[in-house]
Amino acid sequence: MSSLSANNIFSPLEPESFTDESKTVIDFIADYYRNIETYPVQGNVKPGYLSAQLPKTAPYCSESLEEILKDVTDSILPGLTHWQSPNFFAYFQANASTAGFLGEMLCSGLNVVGFNWISSPAATELESIVMDWMGKMLKLPSSFLFCGTGGGVLHGSTCEAVVCTLATARDKALEKLGVCEYITKLVVYASDQTHFTFQKAAKLVGIPSSNFRALTTSVSTEFSLSPEKVRAAIEDDIKSGLVPLYLCATVGTTGSGAVDPLQELGEIAREYKLWFHIDAAYAGSACVCPEFRHYLDGVELADSISMNAHKWFLTNMDCCCLWIKQPKLLVDSLSIHSEIMRNSATESNTVIDYKDWQIALSRRFKALKLWIVIRKHGLANLMHHIRSDIEMAKRFEALVREDKRFEMMATRRFALVCFRLKPKREDEGSELNGKLIDAVNSSGKAFMSHTVLSGVYVIRCAIGSTLTEDRHVNELWKLIQEKAQFLLLE
Amino acid sequence: MSSLSANNIFSPLEPESFTDESKTVIDFIADYYRNIETYPVQGNVKPGYLSAQLPKTAPYCSESLEEILKDVTDSILPGLTHWQSPNFFAYFQANASTAGFLGEMLCSGLNVVGFNWISSPAATELESIVMDWMGKMLKLPSSFLFCGTGGGVLHGSTCEAVVCTLATARDKALEKLGVCEYITKLVVYASDQTHFTFQKAAKLVGIPSSNFRALTTSVSTEFSLSPEKVRAAIEDDIKSGLVPLYLCATVGTTGSGAVDPLQELGEIAREYKLWFHIDAAYAGSACVCPEFRHYLDGVELADSISMNAHKWFLTNMDCCCLWIKQPKLLVDSLSIHSEIMRNSATESNTVIDYKDWQIALSRRFKALKLWIVIRKHGLANLMHHIRSDIEMAKRFEALVREDKRFEMMATRRFALVCFRLKPKREDEGSELNGKLIDAVNSSGKAFMSHTVLSGVYVIRCAIGSTLTEDRHVNELWKLIQEKAQFLLLE
Repeated sequence: MSSLSANNIFSPLEPESFTDESKTVIDFIADYYRNIETYPVQGNVKPGYLSAQLPKTAPYCSESLEEILKDVTDSILPGLTHWQSPNFFAYFQANASTAGFLGEMLCSGLNVVGFNWISSPAATELESIVMDWMGKMLKLPSSFLFCGTGGGVLHGSTCEAVVCTLATARDKALEKLGVCEYITKLVVYASDQTHFTFQKAAKLVGIPSSNFRALTTSVSTEFSLSPEKVRAAIEDDIKSGLVPLYLCATVGTTGSGAVDPLQELGEIAREYKLWFHIDAAYAGSACVCPEFRHYLDGVELADSISMNAHKWFLTNMDCCCLWIKQPKLLVDSLSIHSEIMRNSATESNTVIDYKDWQIALSRRFKALKLWIVIRKHGLANLMHHIRSDIEMAKRFEALVREDKRFEMMATRRFALVCFRLKPKREDEGSELNGKLIDAVNSSGKAFMSHTVLSGVYVIRCAIGSTLTEDRHVNELWKLIQEKAQFLLLE
Repeated sequence: MSSLSANNIFSPLEPESFTDESKTVIDFIADYYRNIETYPVQGNVKPGYLSAQLPKTAPYCSESLEEILKDVTDSILPGLTHWQSPNFFAYFQANASTAGFLGEMLCSGLNVVGFNWISSPAATELESIVMDWMGKMLKLPSSFLFCGTGGGVLHGSTCEAVVCTLATARDKALEKLGVCEYITKLVVYASDQTHFTFQKAAKLVGIPSSNFRALTTSVSTEFSLSPEKVRAAIEDDIKSGLVPLYLCATVGTTGSGAVDPLQELGEIAREYKLWFHIDAAYAGSACVCPEFRHYLDGVELADSISMNAHKWFLTNMDCCCLWIKQPKLLVDSLSIHSEIMRNSATESNTVIDYKDWQIALSRRFKALKLWIVIRKHGLANLMHHIRSDIEMAKRFEALVREDKRFEMMATRRFALVCFRLKPKREDEGSELNGKLIDAVNSSGKAFMSHTVLSGVYVIRCAIGSTLTEDRHVNELWKLIQEKAQFLLLE
């Protein structure tokens, strides 16, 4: 058995075989990148395909890496949707990089669990340092940084960041109200374009679904949240005896890349004493470029802001940055006394225990990954990366505009283009464009997704996979035109 | 700049440099394992040490991997608590393995985001298959498996698993009660030895802290949760007009490795219609061995059970297995309609969309890691791994018992030994043993942690780091004796 060394002692972390086998997997992954364009972007498999290929129970004896990698090649790769393919244009990209991968390897290799300072001081301290780095790159006010009066933490996802800040806002409100039953009176506000995980997070922390306001957006405000609507909804709720709690604004909505007006929304939040969170999951990355930074104007009015480095910042999954103005409030809500965690560093009040800034106790050393991504690229290359994606999206937009059979469906701000094939009759638009997406996706040559904006079915082309180059965008457009031509002839 | 290739195109995921640089990091990590015993187990650094060594802002230009690795060596490694050290005996181990690392590499390299079936069918299907494998290894009833009527999912942490099942139980109860204000009447039950994240999870989902029952345990029940106390607490709460909701039992408590009586607790939960969750985070792994499986007797009465493969199952962070009897209930609570997620596979009702089984939308392909861990070791080696750790703990226990200056403080069931240096006077026990731990830990030669059982300060020696061998246990004991001798002479 390969896991038993020569002297028959089971040694699952022996440095020689660790090195050999790890390098085999490195070569495997490099080959995958080399050949990635040969796979259909979306795996052409049927539900249940894999259970027909794999045993129903675990093996009793060890299997070799060769056998396992053969199964990855034969059974796993054909069933993947290849997010790293240069022809992946769906959802938002999850752009990997060598730097992100190196960071993941170190994180996984060191495998420390930095739940509090003492359990790995470097893990905590590097996270604080890198969160300040990232915050400064985004020109966040110092009220969000450790070098000022706030601080940042790495979560796995925006939903987690929202759960934690919502629970904090909730606990603060209930403490002030003094009646825990009032949890059912708390109301949260967002737009119908806000990511659906916000509603999920609100439900998770016990806000009744009936107290979730998804305010309608329209083409007239470019699908951004209208401050007037927010104010009216708050006033209505107050009149009904409800308690406005939390307002979530988005910089770069999932549907169309819309940007909510932070300044005006922030002023309303301040006026009515709501927690104001900014979800910059997607477009936050772009704000490291001076020419896009204005999308964050008004951030100084927020209580918290999050962005996903794992979307567009060359950081392999997962890595969500959350900054908060008053970390003490977060800690008040999320810390629970535990004897086993007691230690003199914590009691000295001079250290951060990140377990009290997140849901779980356990945490990976993700800061290492973001730190390496930033250092290995440098701000200059990271800006170049954002700009080149946006340039490709601009070119794609121009191609759409040039072809009169198509139309743009939302203002393009970043690297997401929302368009559709013009239907002959409006009520055919949804079916026609659904068919167009299906035709593109089932070709295996590209993968896109859709949304609905003000009731209209829209194709989303999100540009930004790490390996995407001009030629892929050209090929995509040719493919779309070809499939559209076929549909229009039907 | 190293990230720019010869023709001056920025290519952050270019296969040749990916291969070279990744292999450099592999060698770095292998060297770390080779030299791991030369580091003090707990980094000897002071709060704030790292900010004095690193720049306050991100670099504008890219830096080389060599520079970065030099900083890891000079600044990060000295500030780590080395969880992979064979002399790490604190908390519970997070045991890494080559297999777990290979799985992490593939997960990070493929970097797919399998939030629903369509977004990477293989990711979803492999997870379902491996959850059934793992469930069968634990001899879970088929009511928890996909091949039966239940199913499993990989979370990042127990806290997440508990948040999701608690929210599900809460929503089901509130729907039945028909009054959302009754959220403040819901009560959850556990013991004072239940992991503190259970209380945190309850708080997160909106259960008032006053409705959290941490029932006292004592040495008479070996620190396990007494069914009589649970029944009495439930009866009391019902009399007070409260609504018992959820009971959490533990197999292998963090404090002392105690096992709650599942059968009797499960019967009470069934009688009063509480959700019954089993937290087998630590000792679940041991239950793959036939001789320890009896600790799970009664699991058939549970609604959900979780265990952390990242603790004692050679799976690098993070990997928490959650099985649930009625996945539909989980999905009812955690799914939110989103147009962007709509697809025909989901609408056919023949696939699993794991986004509705967890908090976040995003998810890593963790199943690959657990699958490789199981295949590369095989059940035989995994059992051997558990047994050899338990054998070492038995030997350590024997050493404690042989030395009359020490005493065992709880029954040892798995690989956790709770003991203390006998104080001359009972009221000196806490200080004496605190000093003993400090002396051991500050030597840098080993790292242990403590707990308090029924008011008594106890030293925990958790054996199970992957690299720990008999000689390390012998050295630890010698070190403890030496430090104790010194303290007793003071």
